[in-house]
Amino acid sequence: MDFSASINPLGPPQSAIVAIEKGIADLKAYPDPNYSQLRSCLAEYHQLPSEWILPGNGAAELLTWAARELSQWELTFLHTPAFADYWRAFSTFNVNVNPLRLDLKNLSIINDRISGKNRAILLNNPHNPTGQLWKIEEILPYLENFALVVVDEAFMDFLPPGREQSLIPLIGNYPNLIILRSLTKFYSLPGLRLGYAISHPARLKQWQKWRDPWAVNVLAAAAAIAAVSDRNFQKQTWRWLLEARAELFKGLAAIPGLQPLPGTANFLLVGTEQPSSQLQLKLLQQSRILIRDCISFPELGDRYFRVAVRTKKNNQTLLQAIATILSPAK
Amino acid sequence: MDFSASINPLGPPQSAIVAIEKGIADLKAYPDPNYSQLRSCLAEYHQLPSEWILPGNGAAELLTWAARELSQWELTFLHTPAFADYWRAFSTFNVNVNPLRLDLKNLSIINDRISGKNRAILLNNPHNPTGQLWKIEEILPYLENFALVVVDEAFMDFLPPGREQSLIPLIGNYPNLIILRSLTKFYSLPGLRLGYAISHPARLKQWQKWRDPWAVNVLAAAAAIAAVSDRNFQKQTWRWLLEARAELFKGLAAIPGLQPLPGTANFLLVGTEQPSSQLQLKLLQQSRILIRDCISFPELGDRYFRVAVRTKKNNQTLLQAIATILSPAK
Repeated sequence: MDFSASINPLGPPQSAIVAIEKGIADLKAYPDPNYSQLRSCLAEYHQLPSEWILPGNGAAELLTWAARELSQWELTFLHTPAFADYWRAFSTFNVNVNPLRLDLKNLSIINDRISGKNRAILLNNPHNPTGQLWKIEEILPYLENFALVVVDEAFMDFLPPGREQSLIPLIGNYPNLIILRSLTKFYSLPGLRLGYAISHPARLKQWQKWRDPWAVNVLAAAAAIAAVSDRNFQKQTWRWLLEARAELFKGLAAIPGLQPLPGTANFLLVGTEQPSSQLQLKLLQQSRILIRDCISFPELGDRYFRVAVRTKKNNQTLLQAIATILSPAK
Repeated sequence: MDFSASINPLGPPQSAIVAIEKGIADLKAYPDPNYSQLRSCLAEYHQLPSEWILPGNGAAELLTWAARELSQWELTFLHTPAFADYWRAFSTFNVNVNPLRLDLKNLSIINDRISGKNRAILLNNPHNPTGQLWKIEEILPYLENFALVVVDEAFMDFLPPGREQSLIPLIGNYPNLIILRSLTKFYSLPGLRLGYAISHPARLKQWQKWRDPWAVNVLAAAAAIAAVSDRNFQKQTWRWLLEARAELFKGLAAIPGLQPLPGTANFLLVGTEQPSSQLQLKLLQQSRILIRDCISFPELGDRYFRVAVRTKKNNQTLLQAIATILSPAK
């Protein structure tokens, strides 16, 4: 039972599977290099003109080109701990990174001491691995002061309407803003690869010239079109997550030696008194359960682990297995 | 009827379709970033150790990183006319290109006057759009003298065993060699995206760090594993192509005003006295047939067009439609 990857357990939606199966007949032709149908579908979903949206072979592919943009500025700030693939992309284009260590007790990004002139910042909202959601108002000062702001919103769609803090509605005002979104986590299709960038059309046209013309395969494009129109799946996911996460949080908090952080996405970061590597090994051996140790986040090391929110039944299995290890007397 | 894209009309093989359908169940997991199963399958096919092979999201994705390698040398030679996407990739990393115009009458690449010190060359064998196949012996001097040699063998698998001139068997001797291969043309899966690079393991490890970890989707990987093992499909393709191309060549050569070049791949370049743009338009209007004009090859302009070799029946339809336009009196 895999709690290490943060993938929606309700998916993939049947609508996307049907679209993929139908799409097999189209594999004999090259993808449309402009991805017109997919872009207009995403454009309608976000109420934007389609030239402000560029699909990619997973958000990770687009991150590579975002890093190239970042490398054009003297310094890029990054709050840590941070997703390991940011470091890969930075290194591809020799981005000069200045890590800003988050205080895990309050997780604030309000910082009056850093200047944004000729500088860039990469924000991740909601933040992986803490699950923290920053408000638009907290990010606005960065948009006003920094030469370039990249916001990775890979987990934003897990926030129900009314609770999300996406910058998409503001994109028209900020030519210095790049938003990255993923479709593979919410719709459980990480094997198919699909993400998109939202930014000024001139920037996205440049990216299209940098990369090859057919970056997104036709099955991913077909699945995406079906998935973003699937309101039922979206509503089911929001309903499941709200309840399942609250239960999982409560269960983890009740186990002595564990301190879960109140995450807003489909995973929880958990402080642990017992080293997480030991706990991970025991869970694998005793219950065939995989949790995510935090070795790829050097700031966290052995004092934290991350778990995906899965179905309520799976989450109960996890809680029991952890409890057996950490408080066997009970 | 599309003669503009050079895709095998016999494909996709049923074995690949079955693999894709089975693979849909695996979309919930990320691809293996090392693509171990796919790499060892390709390694067995080419009798190479697997670390000499790197799969990509189509050969075009790998071309981007090959261009980055080329940019590290003072000059890159390229025979023209050339595939338009080479220019895109060169421009991504500001490769300093020196075009070498091919003489379409003899198509030789033997050139004693160019020195290879600190210089690179990109060769395309068989060559698109002429269909010319250069012998290994013609390429060897480049391997000996140039700092870096990239050979795009996207159409090499259309050559039956015994006739191909692939450099793959020599790869171990030349750390300055990069070979690019495509699986989407021979196996008719351009919508799914799959190619691979063959080069020294140190170089491919570098590429893996440059690009994102999950460049190849799991359905493309599954299809590739099935396809390269499908000996029947390969034999059928070689048998079909040999006969169908010979017939198409003969038919084109018999039409007054047309001079087909004797290509070795699954397409033919055809010299035409009537401007190709006019011929293209008439074919579309009168017969709903699409041929490839050569506008994206500025050296060829209106004096040439390119056609894919399709089924014998389709090829006859094409020949009749062209004949009706060019020699209506008959």
